[in-house]
Amino acid sequence: DSNPTADTGTIKLAVIPGDGIGQEVTAEALKVLEVASPAGVKFEQTRYDLGAERYLATGEVLPESVLGEIREHDAILLGAVGGKPNDPNLPPGILERGLLLKLRFELDHYVNLRPSRIFPGAASPLSNPGEVDFVVVREGTEGPYTGNGGSLRVGTPAEVATEVSVNTAFGVERVIRDAFARAQRRPRKKLTLVHKTNVLVHAGAVWWRLFQEVATEYPEVTTDYMHIDAATIFMTTDPARFDVIVTDNLFGDIITDLAAAITGGIGLAASGNVNPDRTAPSMFEPVHGSAPDIAGQQKADPTAAVLSASLLLDHLGYADAAAAIETAVIEDLAARTPGTARRTSEVGDAIAARVSG
Amino acid sequence: DSNPTADTGTIKLAVIPGDGIGQEVTAEALKVLEVASPAGVKFEQTRYDLGAERYLATGEVLPESVLGEIREHDAILLGAVGGKPNDPNLPPGILERGLLLKLRFELDHYVNLRPSRIFPGAASPLSNPGEVDFVVVREGTEGPYTGNGGSLRVGTPAEVATEVSVNTAFGVERVIRDAFARAQRRPRKKLTLVHKTNVLVHAGAVWWRLFQEVATEYPEVTTDYMHIDAATIFMTTDPARFDVIVTDNLFGDIITDLAAAITGGIGLAASGNVNPDRTAPSMFEPVHGSAPDIAGQQKADPTAAVLSASLLLDHLGYADAAAAIETAVIEDLAARTPGTARRTSEVGDAIAARVSG
Ligand SMILES: CC(C)[C@H](C(=O)O)[C@@H](O)C(=O)O
Ligand SMILES: CC(C)[C@H](C(=O)O)[C@@H](O)C(=O)O
Repeated sequence: DSNPTADTGTIKLAVIPGDGIGQEVTAEALKVLEVASPAGVKFEQTRYDLGAERYLATGEVLPESVLGEIREHDAILLGAVGGKPNDPNLPPGILERGLLLKLRFELDHYVNLRPSRIFPGAASPLSNPGEVDFVVVREGTEGPYTGNGGSLRVGTPAEVATEVSVNTAFGVERVIRDAFARAQRRPRKKLTLVHKTNVLVHAGAVWWRLFQEVATEYPEVTTDYMHIDAATIFMTTDPARFDVIVTDNLFGDIITDLAAAITGGIGLAASGNVNPDRTAPSMFEPVHGSAPDIAGQQKADPTAAVLSASLLLDHLGYADAAAAIETAVIEDLAARTPGTARRTSEVGDAIAARVSG
Repeated sequence: DSNPTADTGTIKLAVIPGDGIGQEVTAEALKVLEVASPAGVKFEQTRYDLGAERYLATGEVLPESVLGEIREHDAILLGAVGGKPNDPNLPPGILERGLLLKLRFELDHYVNLRPSRIFPGAASPLSNPGEVDFVVVREGTEGPYTGNGGSLRVGTPAEVATEVSVNTAFGVERVIRDAFARAQRRPRKKLTLVHKTNVLVHAGAVWWRLFQEVATEYPEVTTDYMHIDAATIFMTTDPARFDVIVTDNLFGDIITDLAAAITGGIGLAASGNVNPDRTAPSMFEPVHGSAPDIAGQQKADPTAAVLSASLLLDHLGYADAAAAIETAVIEDLAARTPGTARRTSEVGDAIAARVSG
């Protein structure tokens, strides 16, 4: 990866801590990011108070002017977004569609990158998971996430509601290309397409055709296909078989939460919403949500946010700094005493200390 | 449940063994069904050779006349349908859409019933699954399975393919009602709605509203909501928490394969495609596929097919006979020697012997 900011030494970082534990885990991610930055590299942070709190106070989700400002940054660090469950003032989708997905779509984050590894010391619910180390390349800008569709006769017994999954050759091919390139760079060079081609035959056909077409350009990559339902089985019975998975937006959402679960929990799952063409800033965020039930209590594990900061550094071209964070996290996990809970800030401090010294 | 056939003592059973291991496991299910039938009850079987083989030989999937004949039966027992993977003469979806889903849709199987239990002796990949005993009520006649949608400029770089999930108040309410009634009959009386209301806001709204509405009629049932991604996490970390789950056609497909995996494998997962209004015969089938790689080798475990026969008897009103099969299966599982493989017919014989003896 090239390093677009190395010439100035200043990285313009948009920080969106969001709601609930998003605030706490972002603080720790920033703490670790500071100590991990290579000599001479400076982070210039701008904080954006977006999320449930702002929406409930002002009715604003993501003003156009704010989106414009965010666009001018080199990268975005996001905590988590979402209010209390079933808050009547915050209908489902307002923040997800209006903020999180809006950013992914507007900034063309077509590669939603979600690595999964069983780190030493991490507690998998599987009795025999094996050596798990794979990455899911989830399409991020189309599929069932477009918001297409609508409702007729809302609230009546005659209501009809549709959701339209939109799949373009343009959108499918570019994410498949990215996944093949990633598989080619990895030792095992294996790529699995996950879809449901036997039922979703229209979308399935374009995914299947482009997967076969791009495969001819990567003769060294071993390919494989699995229906989403079968993939959930292998994820619990033989997750070590996976190397790179490419899949659509919704299947990717589902399979990555499952992947997080079997590798030791959502507290460790990091993600990058990547614009590989670098036409807009990429965004890094933990896979977990805002967990309002434990917010403000310093109970959240900030590791997923810290690992997201590592992905951010890697994306910006600072591979060594990224690796240093990952190593520190692995050491921290190995040193954890099962049954002992640390405060959110203690975990951040411990990882930061390992990075610096 | 009423017993619509008790007056005649003859149950007209349409048998569709299908492809691959479907043939072998159906033979065992029928063997057990025979010995389990209550005194005086006779099964009058009609076999229908539908599936990949017939399609490849004749181009026929499900002729209208055959569908008409099947309609005249009291119930359907199906093995599994599907040819060799990637057979160019058998594009994905032909059999699934043309036969399996066609039957579910035409016969109005709106309750796709999938019980999940960890039977004693069954090998869960989870180290600590707990006492798992839940049932998924999967909607079976709409959602993303309608086949709505299409493709434009197929095979070109400008291809666009859509899949339309169709959700009607009519279809959603009736399956939610069925799920509440089931939850009410179970000791724990707990019902969890699984959806993705924060992203699929149109479909999510109608599911959410009707779930709340019907809930007011069942004050004793405790309700709960989970996004599909979160549900996969709980399915691996705390599956014992579930009692009844109600969800849409696609989420149900995914979550039930995962449920099968964590309860000891797809070899044990039975399902009923139920028309609760009894306007057409219900259909019972194992959740697994036709597994062409092991077909004809007597390697398949027929337990899922046998348990599907038990669901069939229960649906027809023979609760005692159904329970006898389940008990025999539990005993057979408990008596299995890990590492010892039995032939498909040996498993069937063993279960049948326990039922009769
Ligand atoms: C919050 C929600 C919109 C989001 C998604 O569905 O993509 C989340 O589940 C995720 O995986 O990042
Ligand atoms: C074969 C396929 C069409 C089917 C489905 O998706 O419903 C299967 O996976 C199932 O779960 O019964």
